[in-house]
Amino acid sequence: MAGAAPKVAGAIERVTIVGAGLIGASVALALRRALPGCRITGVDPDRAVRDALVPAIADAATDDLAEGVRDAQLVFVACPVGAMRQAFETIARAAPANCLVTDCGSTKSSVAVAAEEVFGADSPRFVAGHPIAGSEGSGPAAARADLFEGRIWLLCPAGSAQERMAARLGKLLARLGARVESIHPAAHDAMFAEFSHWPHAVAFALCASIADGAFADAARHFSGAGLRDTTRIGASSAPLWTGILLDNRESVLASARHFREKLDVLEEALETSDRAAIEALFAAASRWRRSVD
Amino acid sequence: MAGAAPKVAGAIERVTIVGAGLIGASVALALRRALPGCRITGVDPDRAVRDALVPAIADAATDDLAEGVRDAQLVFVACPVGAMRQAFETIARAAPANCLVTDCGSTKSSVAVAAEEVFGADSPRFVAGHPIAGSEGSGPAAARADLFEGRIWLLCPAGSAQERMAARLGKLLARLGARVESIHPAAHDAMFAEFSHWPHAVAFALCASIADGAFADAARHFSGAGLRDTTRIGASSAPLWTGILLDNRESVLASARHFREKLDVLEEALETSDRAAIEALFAAASRWRRSVD
Repeated sequence: MAGAAPKVAGAIERVTIVGAGLIGASVALALRRALPGCRITGVDPDRAVRDALVPAIADAATDDLAEGVRDAQLVFVACPVGAMRQAFETIARAAPANCLVTDCGSTKSSVAVAAEEVFGADSPRFVAGHPIAGSEGSGPAAARADLFEGRIWLLCPAGSAQERMAARLGKLLARLGARVESIHPAAHDAMFAEFSHWPHAVAFALCASIADGAFADAARHFSGAGLRDTTRIGASSAPLWTGILLDNRESVLASARHFREKLDVLEEALETSDRAAIEALFAAASRWRRSVD
Repeated sequence: MAGAAPKVAGAIERVTIVGAGLIGASVALALRRALPGCRITGVDPDRAVRDALVPAIADAATDDLAEGVRDAQLVFVACPVGAMRQAFETIARAAPANCLVTDCGSTKSSVAVAAEEVFGADSPRFVAGHPIAGSEGSGPAAARADLFEGRIWLLCPAGSAQERMAARLGKLLARLGARVESIHPAAHDAMFAEFSHWPHAVAFALCASIADGAFADAARHFSGAGLRDTTRIGASSAPLWTGILLDNRESVLASARHFREKLDVLEEALETSDRAAIEALFAAASRWRRSVD
């Protein structure tokens, strides 16, 4: 197997992006800038997305995954997490044996399980990944070549074979401006439930609450930067984030319970006009937030 | 009384800012730019704040409110809402009879009641106000001369006498770049509970939850723009926002109940893996959020 191990260092000439949404199309743009001679193929089921890809973002586009990865040296799977396993199955069958596959999903435990079942335990053909970058935008129109500049890109190698591949892949990701770090899938999912997935759910809930309240129009007119920032990620893709939350359901529910405890303290203190309790909670919050950045 | 009615149009030569935090100091900076010949006095109980005021932000600073408003033609009261009534009492006694007083508080019902009790019903000496501008910063160091540019500044005249004063004051506020609108105090407070005060509480609760969870440090390291934006206002002043929430307690609790209904739907749907219910809530949320801006 060692002779067939995918090469990532050196000249990469053919990369395929599976799922050309915000992340996939941004990977394509970033690769174009970093590897000007590289041929980039985008695979997406959506005709409008494919039309947007060529020639601005990719050299070719197809809705046929097997065809799209046929001669790829490197594949980024950037489809919704719920569609990963099926994509892996087709790629394992259709891509060259020395093609390296990585993904960009926001959850990692289910991806690691699917990859192990499809590619084998610690297969050098796969390394799970998660670029910590994005925006509330969706689709290739929201893509940016500099989306990963200065941002962390997490890799989750499952063993020593994947660690070697992660080291090679990491060199390429560094050329996209990313800061590469390794993490275990379970640790990843518990953490990101707490500070990404559940906060997305809170922003969605806040938007939904305002949207069907008495002041949905007034909020548009009068709201300041505070509301706009707090709710910005509530504009994110509903199906995408539904998939992420369900995929990481246990950890997300744990973070939800923890958040609800704070909300209970706050509402109880408001009901009883307990100034000290509110101020203590707010002070702990602002102390932490001021330590960020 | 008509002869003693405060003049705002024409040359204003002496303005006093009571409370030189983010908003008060920004008013001072904006006035300096709009009215270069105007003498600006800052009143603040905090020695460090007063030291920061002169000469960069104001011409004089004092901790003696009566002294600070003695010859003022216009007073902006920008102290915390809980301190407004006492400030009004001193100003009513110490300021010239033809001095116009306005405030910058984030709640308006309690301010309107206090102003009526201190200055009298529909007194031409007072108009309640609320500039819809700010940041998570605090104190004069966070002040900006352009904080009000393009932002709405709400005024709450209580009758025809105050409406005339609001029209005059509005001309000055327009010179600070603000877009002036009128609103009833009760309507103001119900609205701002929904799209400002309660969202601040949610951001504080989210920060507090992360802060004492297992991933407080990891969140600092790994968090992306999403978490930073969602929690930004959680860095705001704890005592200031405790005062605002308590001052507008009934409306804030109504908004809290409404938000909790959405949270209940979401958690129940996560518990039962009800994809359709989650996606419906997220879709309603993102539809509204995308209509903002």
